[in-house]
Amino acid sequence: MTTTVVLPQPYLLFLGDETEPGYAKTAFGLRDWAPEKCIGEYVTSDDAVATGLPRISLAEATERGARSLVIGVANRGGLISAAWIPTLLEAITVGLDLVNGLHARLGDIPELVEAAARHGRRLIDIRTPPANIPVATGAKRTGKRLLTVGTDCHLGKKYTAMALTAAFVARGKNTDFRATGQTGIMIAGGGMPMDAVVSDFEAGAAEILSPAAAEDHWDVIEGQGSLFHPGYAPVSLGLLHGSQPDVLVVCHEPGRTRMLGTAGFPVATVEDALDLNLRHASLTNKAVRCAGVSFNTSRLSEEDAVALMERESARLGMPVADPMRGGGQFDRLVDACLA
Amino acid sequence: MTTTVVLPQPYLLFLGDETEPGYAKTAFGLRDWAPEKCIGEYVTSDDAVATGLPRISLAEATERGARSLVIGVANRGGLISAAWIPTLLEAITVGLDLVNGLHARLGDIPELVEAAARHGRRLIDIRTPPANIPVATGAKRTGKRLLTVGTDCHLGKKYTAMALTAAFVARGKNTDFRATGQTGIMIAGGGMPMDAVVSDFEAGAAEILSPAAAEDHWDVIEGQGSLFHPGYAPVSLGLLHGSQPDVLVVCHEPGRTRMLGTAGFPVATVEDALDLNLRHASLTNKAVRCAGVSFNTSRLSEEDAVALMERESARLGMPVADPMRGGGQFDRLVDACLA
Repeated sequence: MTTTVVLPQPYLLFLGDETEPGYAKTAFGLRDWAPEKCIGEYVTSDDAVATGLPRISLAEATERGARSLVIGVANRGGLISAAWIPTLLEAITVGLDLVNGLHARLGDIPELVEAAARHGRRLIDIRTPPANIPVATGAKRTGKRLLTVGTDCHLGKKYTAMALTAAFVARGKNTDFRATGQTGIMIAGGGMPMDAVVSDFEAGAAEILSPAAAEDHWDVIEGQGSLFHPGYAPVSLGLLHGSQPDVLVVCHEPGRTRMLGTAGFPVATVEDALDLNLRHASLTNKAVRCAGVSFNTSRLSEEDAVALMERESARLGMPVADPMRGGGQFDRLVDACLA
Repeated sequence: MTTTVVLPQPYLLFLGDETEPGYAKTAFGLRDWAPEKCIGEYVTSDDAVATGLPRISLAEATERGARSLVIGVANRGGLISAAWIPTLLEAITVGLDLVNGLHARLGDIPELVEAAARHGRRLIDIRTPPANIPVATGAKRTGKRLLTVGTDCHLGKKYTAMALTAAFVARGKNTDFRATGQTGIMIAGGGMPMDAVVSDFEAGAAEILSPAAAEDHWDVIEGQGSLFHPGYAPVSLGLLHGSQPDVLVVCHEPGRTRMLGTAGFPVATVEDALDLNLRHASLTNKAVRCAGVSFNTSRLSEEDAVALMERESARLGMPVADPMRGGGQFDRLVDACLA
């Protein structure tokens, strides 16, 4: 049976000799979002950037329970540097699996493949989807599902899903965060790299990601892209159909006017995103509803942000909150999701 | 630069020792749809099915100008039979490229790869998309584009596009048929296997398929799937956004009630298909319009079909025609497309 990507945790974060913090985003993201899953960091030079996690050897990491070495740096081009190979080979030898989110694949490097086979270790390329994903059937699954959807890319769909997961758990709900992108998969320890799945199987991949569950179980699914993005909309639509969400939360960044990476396309309005996502979602779940809106207000002052969200909440007739700010607005959004 | 799949024509059709006509659909399809591109057929047994094309040797085929051997049979599982290998090797030796539309890949068979390299021949796996397809930008391209869209899969989108291409050419329009599926690509001699493209690049693949052209040039693009299909909608949406069509033609089979390959999903109505496709298409082309509807009336009598199409045309306020039946109804559909 085809399953999702699953990562062996906890991690040791590999930083090599990277001195530029901008190239260590993956390591910093894991430190920030999943510190309890990170045993420490490993460097090959004293000058390397520091995450603040314990700087330990490969052997120390395994003694402390680490199960995989995560490549926490990304150089230009997403390549696996030849300078990293000795460390990667040693990690395999001491009993760590390797986890890689770069475009280049560990599985394409013969000496790593050979060493992993000899030591019974796994090379996990997160951007490589599992084999034999089926075509989606649209058959209804048990359990409850929430999907974050967006008016554009990169405006808070992952963060909103993680914050809602934490809030659901805090209220005693049995909840899983379902990751759909590289960073989310590393944080969650598993998931489905939706943007790397062949189009014919995109909705099928989403069906696998949130399998049938207990009636009171929640899957909170990380959205991808936007139905209004001229490049990424197929990812969004397959995820929407296959997730068959009961609840949608629309994510938006007030003030952003142009879609990222496009020929000047305007960002969709919240109302258009709400309407078009509900229309498509109703194909696989007639009972779908929108619980509210998540704003990314990181460019606004607290006062301006709260006032804007109150106005928009009154105008749209539903909760509007910034999960990063929390507070009563976010509580009302959580209430509406669980209502 | 990334280009589409291009097939060397004319073809020699390989039938092997296949005796079951149902497994020779590709060969029959090419005979029916592109006879001028087929030099003959090649069999390894006198009992094999016959297409009616000249039964010739590999050497005769090259003498008559054949440039590739097309695998015209598909066995259960879509495998490349070991019994075919001697013929495929001989074909490479006499100077033919190999063309394969099966799921299994010629490029995964080392002895074929080695022989092709030695003789400077190509192994073309149609289901393998070209490398380095970019993410779509949505930037407007010159020239005119028509896309066929559907209320379900497998109901006439390819045939409608081919019939419209022929009609446009007959009226003196500079027109290219743009194939998006395996059979269409073989008939056209090139195209893009849209269902095999990774979701992030789906719309980008459609952008490559119908490049900028002269203002009075038409690309008539074969549609795929349906926005209402729970499995294949991502393919349809990427093709729609990337094609940035000026004109849509909605394809429908009256009387079909359930979508193919789904858990009992109803077929969309023509009105819903028209509305949702126009809404999405307007993202990349504000001037998009629907010229009319193509009915697959193969299960109806001529009299019933013509009467139904007249009624539906009056009800919908646009031409409704079955390209297979032609006649005045189809002429009016062509008029509306070119209006």
